[in-house]
Amino acid sequence: MDNFTFYAPTYFAFGKDTERETGKYVKRFGGTRVLIHYGGGSVIRSGLLDRVKESLEAEQIGYVELGGVKPNPRSGLVYEGIALCREEKVDFILAVGGGSTIDSAKAIAAGVSYDGDFWDYYQGKVVEQAVPIGTVLTISAAGSEGSPDSVITKEEGMYKRAATGEALRPRFTIMNPALTQTLPAYQTACGITDIMAHLYERYLTNTKEVECTDRMIEALLLTMIHEGPRAIAEPDNYEARANIMWAGMMAHNNSCGVGRTQDWTSHSIEHELSALYDCAHGAGLAVVMPAVFTYNLQHDVMRFAQAAVRVWGCQMDFGNPQRTAVEGIEALRSFLISIGMPKNFAELGAREEDIEKLAHTACYGDVEAGTTGGFVPLGQKDVEAVYRLML
Amino acid sequence: MDNFTFYAPTYFAFGKDTERETGKYVKRFGGTRVLIHYGGGSVIRSGLLDRVKESLEAEQIGYVELGGVKPNPRSGLVYEGIALCREEKVDFILAVGGGSTIDSAKAIAAGVSYDGDFWDYYQGKVVEQAVPIGTVLTISAAGSEGSPDSVITKEEGMYKRAATGEALRPRFTIMNPALTQTLPAYQTACGITDIMAHLYERYLTNTKEVECTDRMIEALLLTMIHEGPRAIAEPDNYEARANIMWAGMMAHNNSCGVGRTQDWTSHSIEHELSALYDCAHGAGLAVVMPAVFTYNLQHDVMRFAQAAVRVWGCQMDFGNPQRTAVEGIEALRSFLISIGMPKNFAELGAREEDIEKLAHTACYGDVEAGTTGGFVPLGQKDVEAVYRLML
Repeated sequence: MDNFTFYAPTYFAFGKDTERETGKYVKRFGGTRVLIHYGGGSVIRSGLLDRVKESLEAEQIGYVELGGVKPNPRSGLVYEGIALCREEKVDFILAVGGGSTIDSAKAIAAGVSYDGDFWDYYQGKVVEQAVPIGTVLTISAAGSEGSPDSVITKEEGMYKRAATGEALRPRFTIMNPALTQTLPAYQTACGITDIMAHLYERYLTNTKEVECTDRMIEALLLTMIHEGPRAIAEPDNYEARANIMWAGMMAHNNSCGVGRTQDWTSHSIEHELSALYDCAHGAGLAVVMPAVFTYNLQHDVMRFAQAAVRVWGCQMDFGNPQRTAVEGIEALRSFLISIGMPKNFAELGAREEDIEKLAHTACYGDVEAGTTGGFVPLGQKDVEAVYRLML
Repeated sequence: MDNFTFYAPTYFAFGKDTERETGKYVKRFGGTRVLIHYGGGSVIRSGLLDRVKESLEAEQIGYVELGGVKPNPRSGLVYEGIALCREEKVDFILAVGGGSTIDSAKAIAAGVSYDGDFWDYYQGKVVEQAVPIGTVLTISAAGSEGSPDSVITKEEGMYKRAATGEALRPRFTIMNPALTQTLPAYQTACGITDIMAHLYERYLTNTKEVECTDRMIEALLLTMIHEGPRAIAEPDNYEARANIMWAGMMAHNNSCGVGRTQDWTSHSIEHELSALYDCAHGAGLAVVMPAVFTYNLQHDVMRFAQAAVRVWGCQMDFGNPQRTAVEGIEALRSFLISIGMPKNFAELGAREEDIEKLAHTACYGDVEAGTTGGFVPLGQKDVEAVYRLML
């Protein structure tokens, strides 16, 4: 196990009706003038935004609003939010929504406290200062509610990039699983896929002797396999939603990713797809993951076999572990299809003729790394081959 | 799943040589004058105390010392520590040791900030204010390094009781697994048992639909079963020690205990044993757990069967789940014996003639509850029967 530090000081209030306490938590964490940041329709239609506002008013906390966050959130709205916060002297940012809204709020929070262009943070500069943020979570997926990370797409060039820094961890997160019951099945499935990807990205490590975190990752994957299809089949099943919601946070607050190298190849390769075609991140991951894993299989057959046995319940073929390893990847693929995820480029709306460009951006993009991935560093030709496996 | 809040803002620095950064973390968390609290021999002999002092000196942080913490830490030393902190105007308490030292430090930290008798907190008053504390952990066991809990024995009456409160969570914890390599096998095994007990106490719940936390608990139990015997057989195995250390913290910071009722019968019944006979807490738990589980089996056969199958790898007997459930309890018993733990009253140094008194104190003690345990509330006659199963 590698040396590490771990610090996750987010306050979680979990359960029914907890959004009514939003104002109380904003006050506890020092907010006096709030930007409420959100997407659109459902947050308003469901009455959630009104309940959140009422809770702020009950604590005499003033607020301004900025809606309009889209999936794959864009830099344009971030700049708008930064200007608004400065103008209105906002000292707390409240994200009401899913990962896109939270990530957009984080970008604004970092930008307000920084003299330069906020995009610097999405090119490798670590965020050390930011306006404090809180979240009212409406989608189990990104894990941004408990993480120090944010992903934004820059409109010039359509680069989708990540920033990180402890200052971006939400001060508090309100998690009411009932708020996710109104999600369409497709979005629910995208969220499930994203959570599973966060787990696989940590599972695929070159660090030896990480039994504890291996087991924790497997536990959360098993939870998704058990509860995911239930939430799809019974959208109103509070209990399934609750288990997915806690698993989604635990999957990405890094308590199960400490002390080990991580991969993030699938995210990197997917980000190019959702940046270019504006497909859902989870849907992209569903197509990308089996391809990446198949391509990287030979790098560590036993690791994939371990996942196959412990997570997917495959029989270990002790004479031919690779057979078991492949079985595990196919089990993942079948599971993702069974919950309604796309299985190839065509279903995703991606085009074969873009492959070279996609692979180039993944490897060279605006940060000229030349390779992508922590498990097996893949060069442009490798990434092209991975994309071809998705056809 | 029940509503809950979760907040675990401890900063963890994990890995080799991390104790050399102690001073840096004390400074980061605002300490300017420190009480170093510890037990005795090994912390001094190993040179750890000197390394910690050097790191404080490097940051120009002044300190006073209070050694002498014994296993099953006592109220006497706590009063001494409170007086010393007030006299020396200490603003940060640094525990260098295992759970006993950390718990003693927490009691002092609470007492310094309180006008009344610190023991009030051990009779149910929640700790809302305390001097900040940090820890340098030397034993994987109690989980106190990441928890808001503390257990102290009051010398008048030999009551062993717990206090809790968010103010008791350490600001930081230094976890160097190498520091645990010098532990005798018996103490290592006691720690493993304590960690497993923290997991079982959370596993035995009456809350339905807690798949995510069930799976996490199972993951950590599997880790202990895999790594525990390795640490016993190869005391210098850093990797086994590291996995146990992280599992021990995760087992008790409550991330896998949220949203569910918990049991704590075994701890309650054990506390009377270690208070009266001064046996090791882990050793007591090894004798107590199989007895409690056997006594409570009928309350929820399927829960014990689930543990048997998922944790102990037993075959599910679908025609007779109780057979599987019993097999799981017997597997736990055999495992604990295999790592060197005692199996009955005699090996623990406990006496049959004390059973009535032990059971009475467990149920009525200084807090007159009348019953103990969250899974099945046990009255005095039940507790007596449980003790008899240990003969």
